[in-house]
Amino acid sequence: MNTIKIFCPATIANLSCGFDVLGLCLETAGDEMIIRKSSEKGIRITKIIGADLPMETEKNVAGVAALAMLEKVETDFGFEIEIYKNIKAGSGIGSSAASSAGAVFGINELLGRPFTRKELVLFAMQGEKLASGNAHADNVAPALLGGFTLVRSTNPLDIIKIKSPSELYATVVHPQIELRTSDARSVLKQTVSLTSAITQWGNVGGLIAGLYTEDYELIGRSLHDEIIEPLRSVLIPGFDLIKQTALDNGALGSGISGSGPSIFALSKGKKAAEKIAKAMSQIYKNMDLPYEIHVSKINDEGIKVVI
Amino acid sequence: MNTIKIFCPATIANLSCGFDVLGLCLETAGDEMIIRKSSEKGIRITKIIGADLPMETEKNVAGVAALAMLEKVETDFGFEIEIYKNIKAGSGIGSSAASSAGAVFGINELLGRPFTRKELVLFAMQGEKLASGNAHADNVAPALLGGFTLVRSTNPLDIIKIKSPSELYATVVHPQIELRTSDARSVLKQTVSLTSAITQWGNVGGLIAGLYTEDYELIGRSLHDEIIEPLRSVLIPGFDLIKQTALDNGALGSGISGSGPSIFALSKGKKAAEKIAKAMSQIYKNMDLPYEIHVSKINDEGIKVVI
Repeated sequence: MNTIKIFCPATIANLSCGFDVLGLCLETAGDEMIIRKSSEKGIRITKIIGADLPMETEKNVAGVAALAMLEKVETDFGFEIEIYKNIKAGSGIGSSAASSAGAVFGINELLGRPFTRKELVLFAMQGEKLASGNAHADNVAPALLGGFTLVRSTNPLDIIKIKSPSELYATVVHPQIELRTSDARSVLKQTVSLTSAITQWGNVGGLIAGLYTEDYELIGRSLHDEIIEPLRSVLIPGFDLIKQTALDNGALGSGISGSGPSIFALSKGKKAAEKIAKAMSQIYKNMDLPYEIHVSKINDEGIKVVI
Repeated sequence: MNTIKIFCPATIANLSCGFDVLGLCLETAGDEMIIRKSSEKGIRITKIIGADLPMETEKNVAGVAALAMLEKVETDFGFEIEIYKNIKAGSGIGSSAASSAGAVFGINELLGRPFTRKELVLFAMQGEKLASGNAHADNVAPALLGGFTLVRSTNPLDIIKIKSPSELYATVVHPQIELRTSDARSVLKQTVSLTSAITQWGNVGGLIAGLYTEDYELIGRSLHDEIIEPLRSVLIPGFDLIKQTALDNGALGSGISGSGPSIFALSKGKKAAEKIAKAMSQIYKNMDLPYEIHVSKINDEGIKVVI
């Protein structure tokens, strides 16, 4: 096999209570990449469609992730990467993670899988480091492993994959405003009250328990964030109204996707997720704000080969 | 049935990462209580053996918990309670919780179970409020429900019972010093760093995941507390040495039981738990400090009728 085409899914990180540790993988939103072996050693980005991103390997997240991987494996050939972006940069649904994860996943396939998907996370994190200054795993982990992922620790890396309950769907609305991860980080406070922290880790425990027991109501009760959301949600137009509308229309819970501006809602079943999408859309239509919306089952497989 | 004898188990709250939310139930350490119907209405404490505790109903945790329950159910008779304490007050393994839980469990049995075990938690919490000023559930929940319990929220009360992995054992050593819950509370800080809080909720997630998947290694990696333990452990003689000794002898993890001074270790299998007990004991022998030690399987049933 000399060429591979892959689907690189969008992801939702944080999931309200799980700031910096939880994420999930989407099925119907994502990029595509084509990766092929080339006689020339090294990594070259040969095409980028759908986004204005650097073609230089060392400045591109996919390039940097691939280079980190090639440091750990001997090859007497190189790779060319074509990137077809559908996930907008700065959307909050893991645009850089999709490219970073895609590059290392695709090359690993072409090399005959010297690494497990979990091992690939470390390489993909280098792409995240280029994108945001922080080698975090909360988007690349669900992109590579699928389902829900818990990043218990980044040093040493310890990731737990949790299978998604079978009827769980996500609705994600992306208001077309720019919100840089660095700006979303700058509003955070460096300390939190012990009381709020206890509430948060109780909810993380509840969410994990709800996922294992497929208890949708418990999942919903646990999707609560009193630490990050109050600080970041003011940066997102209509956040409170969108969230309340999602809940009023049957969402189990709703919150900021990653560092925003996208807003997610989880629900039981596709019908509920579509109803929520319609209601969320109406809010932004009324506000005359352009938006994109996704309805997706949770993707338990993660990134995958298309042909 | 007019008389009931029950076993009221000791419990370990907090479990390192799960401050104020997690707890587990022991099998071989606990009190006994005898409760009987009496023609005279109300609650009377008629005997307390093994501890110097108030006989007045309103000043006794078992009495207060029972009174809270009787407010919610009509009876034309009353109850007499005998308490046989084995769990020392101030030991950090749920002495007051055993009495509070025992009273409401026993009366509920004599009444033909008008309440579920989960519903009894709310009444038993009133005993905890008398004991510590705080109506917390992290000992009464595991005492009543058995196994591991996650108190996701106290208002409204939301408790998740998690079955214990089948080979999980606890070793608990109780150095015979007095450490009041109020003193153990007073060393806490009201704020925590966001970084430590993230580490903590990652570990809570990991511990819950480890319990559901019976992943003993993951349980061990998650038993870590960088928020409360560093502040409280200085109040416990030999804490660092005891903990390190437990880990060196095969413990999955070790930490402060409740608010101390007891120290717990979890391990896979009885043999490992006994080896840890021997090693822990030797430390306190060397320090010439009196201690009690318990080795127990996790009690998945919780409080139970003896005859």
